[in-house]
Amino acid sequence: MRAAVFLGANKPLEVREVPTPQPGPGQILVKVAACGICHTDMHYIDHGVPTFKEPPMILGHEPSGTVAALGAGVKNWKEGDRVLLPAVLTCGTCFYCRSGKENICNDMVMFGNHVDGAYAEYVLAPAKDALELPHELPLEESSIIADAISTPFHAVVNRGEVKAGMNVVVFGCGGVGINAVQVAAAVGASVIAVDMIPEKLEAAKKFGAMTTINPGEVERIDKVVKKLTGGGADVTFECIGNPKTIQQAFSCIRKGGRTVVVGYTHHNVELPASKIMFFEQEIVGSLGCRPVDYPRIIELARLGKIKVKELVTGRFGLEDINKGFDLMREGDPHALRSIAVP
Amino acid sequence: MRAAVFLGANKPLEVREVPTPQPGPGQILVKVAACGICHTDMHYIDHGVPTFKEPPMILGHEPSGTVAALGAGVKNWKEGDRVLLPAVLTCGTCFYCRSGKENICNDMVMFGNHVDGAYAEYVLAPAKDALELPHELPLEESSIIADAISTPFHAVVNRGEVKAGMNVVVFGCGGVGINAVQVAAAVGASVIAVDMIPEKLEAAKKFGAMTTINPGEVERIDKVVKKLTGGGADVTFECIGNPKTIQQAFSCIRKGGRTVVVGYTHHNVELPASKIMFFEQEIVGSLGCRPVDYPRIIELARLGKIKVKELVTGRFGLEDINKGFDLMREGDPHALRSIAVP
Amino acid sequence: MRAAVFLGANKPLEVREVPTPQPGPGQILVKVAACGICHTDMHYIDHGVPTFKEPPMILGHEPSGTVAALGAGVKNWKEGDRVLLPAVLTCGTCFYCRSGKENICNDMVMFGNHVDGAYAEYVLAPAKDALELPHELPLEESSIIADAISTPFHAVVNRGEVKAGMNVVVFGCGGVGINAVQVAAAVGASVIAVDMIPEKLEAAKKFGAMTTINPGEVERIDKVVKKLTGGGADVTFECIGNPKTIQQAFSCIRKGGRTVVVGYTHHNVELPASKIMFFEQEIVGSLGCRPVDYPRIIELARLGKIKVKELVTGRFGLEDINKGFDLMREGDPHALRSIAVP
Amino acid sequence: MRAAVFLGANKPLEVREVPTPQPGPGQILVKVAACGICHTDMHYIDHGVPTFKEPPMILGHEPSGTVAALGAGVKNWKEGDRVLLPAVLTCGTCFYCRSGKENICNDMVMFGNHVDGAYAEYVLAPAKDALELPHELPLEESSIIADAISTPFHAVVNRGEVKAGMNVVVFGCGGVGINAVQVAAAVGASVIAVDMIPEKLEAAKKFGAMTTINPGEVERIDKVVKKLTGGGADVTFECIGNPKTIQQAFSCIRKGGRTVVVGYTHHNVELPASKIMFFEQEIVGSLGCRPVDYPRIIELARLGKIKVKELVTGRFGLEDINKGFDLMREGDPHALRSIAVP
Repeated sequence: MRAAVFLGANKPLEVREVPTPQPGPGQILVKVAACGICHTDMHYIDHGVPTFKEPPMILGHEPSGTVAALGAGVKNWKEGDRVLLPAVLTCGTCFYCRSGKENICNDMVMFGNHVDGAYAEYVLAPAKDALELPHELPLEESSIIADAISTPFHAVVNRGEVKAGMNVVVFGCGGVGINAVQVAAAVGASVIAVDMIPEKLEAAKKFGAMTTINPGEVERIDKVVKKLTGGGADVTFECIGNPKTIQQAFSCIRKGGRTVVVGYTHHNVELPASKIMFFEQEIVGSLGCRPVDYPRIIELARLGKIKVKELVTGRFGLEDINKGFDLMREGDPHALRSIAVP
Repeated sequence: MRAAVFLGANKPLEVREVPTPQPGPGQILVKVAACGICHTDMHYIDHGVPTFKEPPMILGHEPSGTVAALGAGVKNWKEGDRVLLPAVLTCGTCFYCRSGKENICNDMVMFGNHVDGAYAEYVLAPAKDALELPHELPLEESSIIADAISTPFHAVVNRGEVKAGMNVVVFGCGGVGINAVQVAAAVGASVIAVDMIPEKLEAAKKFGAMTTINPGEVERIDKVVKKLTGGGADVTFECIGNPKTIQQAFSCIRKGGRTVVVGYTHHNVELPASKIMFFEQEIVGSLGCRPVDYPRIIELARLGKIKVKELVTGRFGLEDINKGFDLMREGDPHALRSIAVP
Repeated sequence: MRAAVFLGANKPLEVREVPTPQPGPGQILVKVAACGICHTDMHYIDHGVPTFKEPPMILGHEPSGTVAALGAGVKNWKEGDRVLLPAVLTCGTCFYCRSGKENICNDMVMFGNHVDGAYAEYVLAPAKDALELPHELPLEESSIIADAISTPFHAVVNRGEVKAGMNVVVFGCGGVGINAVQVAAAVGASVIAVDMIPEKLEAAKKFGAMTTINPGEVERIDKVVKKLTGGGADVTFECIGNPKTIQQAFSCIRKGGRTVVVGYTHHNVELPASKIMFFEQEIVGSLGCRPVDYPRIIELARLGKIKVKELVTGRFGLEDINKGFDLMREGDPHALRSIAVP
Repeated sequence: MRAAVFLGANKPLEVREVPTPQPGPGQILVKVAACGICHTDMHYIDHGVPTFKEPPMILGHEPSGTVAALGAGVKNWKEGDRVLLPAVLTCGTCFYCRSGKENICNDMVMFGNHVDGAYAEYVLAPAKDALELPHELPLEESSIIADAISTPFHAVVNRGEVKAGMNVVVFGCGGVGINAVQVAAAVGASVIAVDMIPEKLEAAKKFGAMTTINPGEVERIDKVVKKLTGGGADVTFECIGNPKTIQQAFSCIRKGGRTVVVGYTHHNVELPASKIMFFEQEIVGSLGCRPVDYPRIIELARLGKIKVKELVTGRFGLEDINKGFDLMREGDPHALRSIAVP
């Protein structure tokens, strides 16, 4: 099969012919329809973030496709079934997996990191982890549910515990933030979107934000939010990964409110201990998404409560996949998500 | 002022001139814009259900209006403010009020039952309990938020704990059920509506049901629901008040699922203890709504996530209020909710 | 190895020499130290309740012991390690397992039912499911943690959500009920124990009940409980499996209270729908226990917060195991739990 | 009546004859049996922390006593009833009070701060807020339940959500910490107590700590805790109010664990954002205690699950109350809590 192979840091992906993998017991072979092009992949290529499997390897962790072959003992799928694969596979036996927190499994395996991913014609997956994609949903664009939508879903529903009619602020309207906006809106929240880039705020409105704030245009964002919400937001989400915006997100919550840290930063963040204590405020992290939530996300998409097709603004064949990364590097403010279509 | 006075069971309301009440300390006088016409009132009139205040008294517990006068010490309102009044006032000091469960307060006071209600030009209310009605919402039609929408909101959000993407079945699409449908849809659920009357099912679709079932047209509703949902609903709501439909609602839930009893019946219900135990199923009741939830419901209405105006299908002056009850008695399948406009 | 083999309904277990099983990949062989003698086994023998594996088979699902041999790939255990085995094994891949509800797994495998159990010198188990037994705990008596204590733990902590200082009533002080009493006491509840047999109530006091009630000695148990608790219990547990005691348990809860059905009955139970609705009361089932809870139960035992050794009032060699069942049939009111010691 | 009157910062309290207050409508007059001597009072005296009521005023916010007189309309008490008063009174009408979070009421009134406190022969209180003290509990020593025990109860049960068998670490074994230890033990947790002072650790053991750590004697406390708990504590409590110990408390939690900030500091705390996000860790504050929790705390004391009498190590008449503060200033490592006995 053809695959876009990662050869190490600072080298473009190279399209090569590689052996098509064969499904072992309990596995399925999936013919890839599309695979989301994610910043995480760019970090391996541009910034030398190490992968667990050493190059040469195949990147790509947001795949959709159809079942092409079944390994021994697989009974829940048949050839041709439309499937989505989660970005991350879990061990199923650690304390976290058994506690309903598979997303922080002690022994995660990520496509395009621990094992070969889906910038290829085919990809292998455990039969138990694949998810049925209903016919109402487009096969290619739905690939991005696997990470770009699932991560915000978990952040909003499980970690933010956002309820209908709550006031929510989302900091950062990139790939993750824009979906935090639309998931929060889909569960009935009143959403304020924050970003420095006007085009991102325009997009946030299209995806359900009630109000938008450009922090470059206001003096104190906490004051603006407190005025808009009558005392502070119920929950704020930091989807950037920057200590300063984490502080801003924290400054915008009401007494008893919660800030959810979704973005990654390796820096420390300085927070006012007195407010945490005296106002019973909360800071919690959010990582990935539990497999059991995928069917609910897919149902939201099927019902049209969240948009999938509209999120895909770029589409690249395997041969052009490096152009997809170039587009990401350029930071086109109108771009949302690209997919690779083998 | 003019008021439609309740004189006792089996007598029509009589429009009379009565003294306009004066607000005491901590009270406001509200000029009534509209008041929902509810089945509960009809039960006092037609079935002799006793009221706590003896007739002659003024019925009506779903009022909206504007502040007309302030009692001593009232600072949070000014004349002309647009307000909604909750159907039920709470004591604020019992265990339930202090536990965040004001809706099951030990010492509730209901408009048009314990104290005079709002089928009148004016009604008195504690200043602390009135709710601000934003200008985006229609003053008259918003009256029905106070009971017809708030009761289903509490049932869906707090008692059903419905989350985005869950499968939900609502039994009965009358005044309460139709709003259980639209609130469940507003929080991201996939809703199946059940009713014997085709017009009610049509309405349910308009208010967000994904699928409808007429139990008269299927052999076993539990089988239909289990097929549609892949094993049973996450949560079912009984909005009728009938042991048989409670049993049906219970039969439709998945393992670990929950049935919420919203409708009232004085009969016992027979349930399979083995299923409760072996499948860890749950039956819980739901009564009214907590005052703290009203602002969130109002926000949902303001954002257009739930419809208010479309729910009002009848409008009667005080002089014609008995016609409003007649309409209810006739059971017009197209009718949703009527309001009295003094 | 020697094993007490079940040959079918209405026949005593027969001690025979059978082949010692060999651990396959991912399995361990456990040298049985002891195995609890449970009513469930008696139901197979006396009442023809069918087992999934057909006789001849080995019963017994509450085993403790030491690791005797490791299958291929097993790394987390070594020979001689002291282990407890859970009564039930789970699939790890169904919706319930992945949601943190392994106890209602879609594809459970029970020792002494689906596979051979532990009334034998050795028993096979998946390495991932065995639990470490600390040296402070007695190897033999700790066997009964696996069902007799774990089931009440789940009922009290997860399903009853009992919190410190709550009022709790436990109906039935047999093998399950007595441990519901002691777990509820260990989490800080104020426990009322109910049983018809004075000796059982004496035992309940020793295991932490603050008060006991013999329903044969009072006119209306709900009135007694409401007086003792100032309005009704927060949570009641039915550990018998009888529609009448489920009704009693339900009648004893306060507004907003919960009844947990732990005992099994195949009969229907008739409940007042109006109370469920109007008082927001709850009835929920409880089945078994999640594997992730076992380490916490073991820690409670290690800290002495729950008693294990004192629960074992009978001890039988494999040759005498039928005497153990005879004792159970006789219903000695002083007997708590017996164990088989191969 | 005699009262120890606060005359302003840096002046000892002065015992004077002042008018005995008279209960207004809804109030009771309480004859003070005892009132805990708290660090908060010392901060007014020594550090000029301002009180809302200006001096001269009466400090003291942990009172117990007997009802001496009833204001108009008070029906739930009679003269001679034994009562405990909560440290803080709440408004009952703000969003937080109505949400079951009275402890973060928008309009709190604290004894000995907003209104006269209980370093006096009598104190006034709203009848609705007094709590019945059962005869099994000592009248004087139970005074300290009002703050010293209630604050840790809320932290452990409501904010830490500590469950039976969990691993818990308490940083600081002073007045609040020692009770966090005993409440956590009372709800079934396995408690590690941390303090620099050996006598405090000795006391922690007496009050239920399983293990103690003196951070001066170990190199890395996080490593010690992770070894003891097999990967990190479920919940840690910071009861000191120091950014460094907050960091330590945070460093000791497991993946998915929670740190509860109970101690007050006006400094910022620097936390690793990557751990919050990647390990889904949580930092939450805890303030005071909800009135609805007091009866449960009193029940825990009545059952002997928490110790009250043993916490009181000093007892001072009003005339000697300044000696009580001196003792606090000296920091006797054996001292736990003193009470003033008018």
